Amino acid sequence: MTLAYLDPRSGETFPIDTPRWCGPGQAPLLLTPLPGITRDQIDPATRSLWRYRAALPMGVPSPITMGEGCTPLVTRRLHGADVRLKCEWFMPTGSFKDRGASVMLSLLRQQGITDVLEDSSGNGGAAVAAYAAAGGLRATIMAPASTSPAKTVQMRAHGAAVELIPGTRQDTADAAVARSSQVFYASHNWHPFFLHGTKTLAYELWEDLGFRAPDNVIVPCGAGSNVLGCEIGFSELLRAGEIDAPPRIFAAQPANCGPIAAAFLAGSEHPVPSPVRPTIAEGTAIAAPIRLSEVLGALRETGGGAVMLTEEEIGTATLDLARSGIYVEPTSAQAAAAFGKLLASGAITPEQTTVLVLTGTGLKATPRIAELLGITL
Amino acid sequence: MTLAYLDPRSGETFPIDTPRWCGPGQAPLLLTPLPGITRDQIDPATRSLWRYRAALPMGVPSPITMGEGCTPLVTRRLHGADVRLKCEWFMPTGSFKDRGASVMLSLLRQQGITDVLEDSSGNGGAAVAAYAAAGGLRATIMAPASTSPAKTVQMRAHGAAVELIPGTRQDTADAAVARSSQVFYASHNWHPFFLHGTKTLAYELWEDLGFRAPDNVIVPCGAGSNVLGCEIGFSELLRAGEIDAPPRIFAAQPANCGPIAAAFLAGSEHPVPSPVRPTIAEGTAIAAPIRLSEVLGALRETGGGAVMLTEEEIGTATLDLARSGIYVEPTSAQAAAAFGKLLASGAITPEQTTVLVLTGTGLKATPRIAELLGITL
Repeated sequence: MTLAYLDPRSGETFPIDTPRWCGPGQAPLLLTPLPGITRDQIDPATRSLWRYRAALPMGVPSPITMGEGCTPLVTRRLHGADVRLKCEWFMPTGSFKDRGASVMLSLLRQQGITDVLEDSSGNGGAAVAAYAAAGGLRATIMAPASTSPAKTVQMRAHGAAVELIPGTRQDTADAAVARSSQVFYASHNWHPFFLHGTKTLAYELWEDLGFRAPDNVIVPCGAGSNVLGCEIGFSELLRAGEIDAPPRIFAAQPANCGPIAAAFLAGSEHPVPSPVRPTIAEGTAIAAPIRLSEVLGALRETGGGAVMLTEEEIGTATLDLARSGIYVEPTSAQAAAAFGKLLASGAITPEQTTVLVLTGTGLKATPRIAELLGITL
Repeated sequence: MTLAYLDPRSGETFPIDTPRWCGPGQAPLLLTPLPGITRDQIDPATRSLWRYRAALPMGVPSPITMGEGCTPLVTRRLHGADVRLKCEWFMPTGSFKDRGASVMLSLLRQQGITDVLEDSSGNGGAAVAAYAAAGGLRATIMAPASTSPAKTVQMRAHGAAVELIPGTRQDTADAAVARSSQVFYASHNWHPFFLHGTKTLAYELWEDLGFRAPDNVIVPCGAGSNVLGCEIGFSELLRAGEIDAPPRIFAAQPANCGPIAAAFLAGSEHPVPSPVRPTIAEGTAIAAPIRLSEVLGALRETGGGAVMLTEEEIGTATLDLARSGIYVEPTSAQAAAAFGKLLASGAITPEQTTVLVLTGTGLKATPRIAELLGITL
């Protein structure tokens, strides 16, 4: 199949050479399936995710790179079982979003894009701002007006134009879509190139484990870019004959805002009514994920699942990890909380190889962690 | 020479088996010289600084490790010359101090230490708190009462007892020394094991560069643990026959608080009168570094030097780096500012291999970076 943008719902394809962020009627796009790579195609001399560049949808002579990827996989004892922690905050901007931003903006720059628009109040915006700066692109980041100034400092330091939008997170997303006729919408939620950055997590886990897939991967899930990245990456490895089966992928979401987990647990392929309340797991508080059906498909097809977590469970997991030396955002700690519940339910077992994807540093969530500790800042 | 603690000023040695943090009269200690290791002695299967464990002063069957080290070395164009950025914030707690904390606490735990005392208002305290938590040690961190709560959140999250001490940073250091009769003083400034953690930076640069030493290493310098770590590590590689000469080591300090640079530039081996004023480069604001003469020795013996930087130069370098995608503390940005000045003076030349050690993430300095941007938090 020729490489193209693919609307997975209609099957329609669009030429890859023409930059686009969606299909007709704002359909979210993927790419047509890629063949994947074998271990011989890894570039061992490159200490970044660009060692897997042969797996990307196009050749990239000049990537925008700052050492992203090649994060440690640390073995720990948790809930009475051995588990592997993939420490995704060992990154330029402190979160896994750097994988997506590095690949997406490298490919877009190669396609002639010089100005990008993103909407985010958190890690996605920081990553796009940093990589735009590194690549000489101009970036505009739209964020909800309620975003704390501390969160926009990083984006502004990178030289991005930050525009604050009144209203909800959805209002900001709508404003970005409305602006997309004027400047290229390089959205971490919409653009499929972003997923081909996050998919390098799958390649890396495979290499970390001596060219094997783990049994289970537990991922904090908001819009689902890590779930889909894993699904794409492991599917490619399966296609390339490097693994026999993909891992089961589990999504961890806050009960206060978990539309993907709610639909999965209801056995639905469509959104079901579910709460939209504030949560300490800010990074996963996405009320209307645009690729809901694709994320559900990834969870079902890999034999994985979804876990909903109370605020108390997320807070406890955050402090438990910190008290064992691991300082991550509450958003990330959901993977550890979900691991405990999946073990307890028997859905996964202690002797399996399970990876928890720890997506972002606790330094991004100082006010939230202070709250958990009862400290007034 | 038998491995021992060494007072480099008197030549006196002390048995390594008895834990101690200083010599008589509070003399700062080093260790007797180690032979270093060859490339065959690296453990290539370990993705952390523990790949160089054969270079440590004792065998460590059970290190306290969270993937510290193996940070990227990124090539960038800066001030019209190619330069290598060693990204030392890709670490568990976000700074290079994790190298020292991992090694120091692993060795101390092996010697039977269960409770540790540290004094710090910043990266050192966070690193010791995290590694104590990871290793099951109890930690007390003393910090100046003026330390912002945001900075102590991380230490408290790791379960450390944080004690706020009225007065200056020196008052806090004095209080820690006074307490050292009650609990083992595992100070990142005092304990020589810490330097045998930071020395792994030298081994890593050597491996990063294909088993060569760079020509120049530029290090932000407060108490000098990175200067001395580099000096120790490259001396060992010289002793092991792996390199022909150590790199020249340059220390970057704020003019507002730069006692090491002041003494170096005055040609003195002792402290000279120099300003002690607030600086945006908080991490290097050490008015009375305990190993001043040893740090000066390292700069002189390697043919390196020292650079003093104005607040404006430090601020400009911080934002220039951020606008190229690199988000580091003003403390770290001093290396980039010093590089510009050393190039301009001809002390170093563009065709040499120069490494800038970028010690900590900008996420640790959000209020300072906001100030630089004119943002009110």
